[in-house]
Amino acid sequence: MTTILLTGFEPFENEPINPSWEAVRRLDGLKLSSAYIVTRQLPCVFGAALVALDHALAAYQPALVIGVGQAGGRADLSIERVAINVNDARIADNNGQQPIDTPVVPGGPAAYFSTLPIKAMAHALRTSGIPASISQTAGTFVCNHVFYGLMHRLAGTNVRAGFIHIPYLPEQAARHPGQPSLALDTVVAGLELALRTAIATGKDLRETGGQLN
Amino acid sequence: MTTILLTGFEPFENEPINPSWEAVRRLDGLKLSSAYIVTRQLPCVFGAALVALDHALAAYQPALVIGVGQAGGRADLSIERVAINVNDARIADNNGQQPIDTPVVPGGPAAYFSTLPIKAMAHALRTSGIPASISQTAGTFVCNHVFYGLMHRLAGTNVRAGFIHIPYLPEQAARHPGQPSLALDTVVAGLELALRTAIATGKDLRETGGQLN
Amino acid sequence: MTTILLTGFEPFENEPINPSWEAVRRLDGLKLSSAYIVTRQLPCVFGAALVALDHALAAYQPALVIGVGQAGGRADLSIERVAINVNDARIADNNGQQPIDTPVVPGGPAAYFSTLPIKAMAHALRTSGIPASISQTAGTFVCNHVFYGLMHRLAGTNVRAGFIHIPYLPEQAARHPGQPSLALDTVVAGLELALRTAIATGKDLRETGGQLN
Amino acid sequence: MTTILLTGFEPFENEPINPSWEAVRRLDGLKLSSAYIVTRQLPCVFGAALVALDHALAAYQPALVIGVGQAGGRADLSIERVAINVNDARIADNNGQQPIDTPVVPGGPAAYFSTLPIKAMAHALRTSGIPASISQTAGTFVCNHVFYGLMHRLAGTNVRAGFIHIPYLPEQAARHPGQPSLALDTVVAGLELALRTAIATGKDLRETGGQLN
Repeated sequence: MTTILLTGFEPFENEPINPSWEAVRRLDGLKLSSAYIVTRQLPCVFGAALVALDHALAAYQPALVIGVGQAGGRADLSIERVAINVNDARIADNNGQQPIDTPVVPGGPAAYFSTLPIKAMAHALRTSGIPASISQTAGTFVCNHVFYGLMHRLAGTNVRAGFIHIPYLPEQAARHPGQPSLALDTVVAGLELALRTAIATGKDLRETGGQLN
Repeated sequence: MTTILLTGFEPFENEPINPSWEAVRRLDGLKLSSAYIVTRQLPCVFGAALVALDHALAAYQPALVIGVGQAGGRADLSIERVAINVNDARIADNNGQQPIDTPVVPGGPAAYFSTLPIKAMAHALRTSGIPASISQTAGTFVCNHVFYGLMHRLAGTNVRAGFIHIPYLPEQAARHPGQPSLALDTVVAGLELALRTAIATGKDLRETGGQLN
Repeated sequence: MTTILLTGFEPFENEPINPSWEAVRRLDGLKLSSAYIVTRQLPCVFGAALVALDHALAAYQPALVIGVGQAGGRADLSIERVAINVNDARIADNNGQQPIDTPVVPGGPAAYFSTLPIKAMAHALRTSGIPASISQTAGTFVCNHVFYGLMHRLAGTNVRAGFIHIPYLPEQAARHPGQPSLALDTVVAGLELALRTAIATGKDLRETGGQLN
Repeated sequence: MTTILLTGFEPFENEPINPSWEAVRRLDGLKLSSAYIVTRQLPCVFGAALVALDHALAAYQPALVIGVGQAGGRADLSIERVAINVNDARIADNNGQQPIDTPVVPGGPAAYFSTLPIKAMAHALRTSGIPASISQTAGTFVCNHVFYGLMHRLAGTNVRAGFIHIPYLPEQAARHPGQPSLALDTVVAGLELALRTAIATGKDLRETGGQLN
């Protein structure tokens, strides 16, 4: 039995909940073929989020890790392609820190690509009627920070890992006029299908997920 | 026992379904205090849609009517404020017609305002966690055509009526990258709450739902 | 020699300038075939804007009137199709007033259509390389207030009139990240061409400018 | 006298012109303090664009290089932060190639950061009234391909380099309803100011240019 680690975040930016944690916790304990899902909530704090991640990695020794985060303004499950080695915070984190143009890991490489079959995952979701796309940027806030830190820790191992951004829940969008949302059930179903696809897929699908600019 | 008429549309523009009909049919037969919901699917065809509406109005003699239509690209339940007396079709309707700058009703007034308590309805939805807003335009396609035709037929009566635009369903958005969506359950709950609010509200709420431009 | 009246607005919502007045004043005194352009700045104040408009109409007895207003967030010259009889202010005007769901003209019709050849104007602009489109709503703030008030005053006369919304200038967009803009020269050229087209066009072009929703 | 190399692209995706080349060629031969601007048009072709870039680098031995490219849909001068080692073409390039998930440089690092003072440049532009922002992704088409290839060639040298995406010109936006644009004069002034700022700035400004997601 192998272990899959899913992380979500605590709420930030005045939100009472964070849909990433609401979705991830619903998958806690689920068995997918020969794997078992464990979950961990991370603080929305530069540095402390990676400490919490380290504890989870040490405790669970997962074979697969997916970080999940809230992306207010996006309309679908955005499967991230790349994490970059920079913190540039437009707002303060939950501990009042607002780093600008600092590295996530001093001396680390400029970026890491997701080691998940991102095209197969996006394809499987869309085929099942769940809005999904490839994203070329995870931003420069705590989500990218965790995504980069995760990939750095796992570099050189055969543990596969990546990151998925999810929209607001409808009850959040009700307070942000005009912003898109997805129902929690849809997100949970999407994350489960993404995991199943990641487990089942060796070589990724060859299907465009690019952007002109 | 009074009757509430809800209309939805058949699919158009290459969609296999129309979320307005999928939502409306789920409310068929529901009792709300002393009222009873009846539903009717309208063709997405200029002229024929109003013929079908006339049959439904004659058959049911409703005390309240809400037309519902698909608004691909919108993120919430858009409660329409005003219907205008113009048909201007960017694409052909389901019968191949593409009227440009013709009146819905020759000689009719330029516009009709919804006679529903639109602010109270939007407020009730948002308070219940369902994304909703006031919209200042229902477009110039078959939805506005039906909305205008509906208000023209009911002008001078005490039958209250209006129109609500709804987003794509997630399975539609999965084929339209980046487009927002709402789950069918959310839309159905929103329409029911909108109806209950319309029934319960006499004088509308005084709360801004305006736009600068 | 006939007279054409162009109106622009004073700045509002913390802007140091209003591009509508910056553009309009540049056209003051211009002769277009047998017509002569006069201009007037209107206050961004419900009520007072229409008093100023009345003075200008009385003073100039124009044969053609176009109101111009700033539409932050829009990307092109938006030629408005319809003015509606409602004030619904999302923010306070320059006099601290914030009317909600009051009529522009008590007892007036629900709406007036522009009496300009809006399709021919949009077509001429685009053909000349100036971004332009038909807009189905002028909002519910002071721009729509002036547009409606203007059409009401001219109803039954043969004076043609309408309204055009314009984007931010680049220097405004520089303070509103991600917002579109047009250069003042482009807007001025566009307004002049729109006027020339309005003068030269009797029956409007038959070309779609509609929206699905 | 040092040399500054500016590159633009030939037109692609059915456009008759490419604003990047139209702007860049206007700056050809300009002297900025002790530097001299040379320009080169690159083909919108994977591989061939880098061959042309190599020729220009060899011919001019520039001390500073900025690639410029068209970004239809963006509203400002987008100063790119990072180039990633992937080609993923949503459409075919001008030679009919459509690579999917291939590296720009096999075995190259995952990404390179711009070595320009991107925050100081964006700040200078906005302060001068020219819309500008930091962008976290240059896409995965030929622009990113050139940006990555450029940074790879210059890695380990003291030649500074980066990439700037620019919007459509107004005449292009006139054919793409709703798309933002900037006038050629504004773009040319912005590029010149960006260059002057890059030359004058050693350590970059500490100002947020980040995104939450």
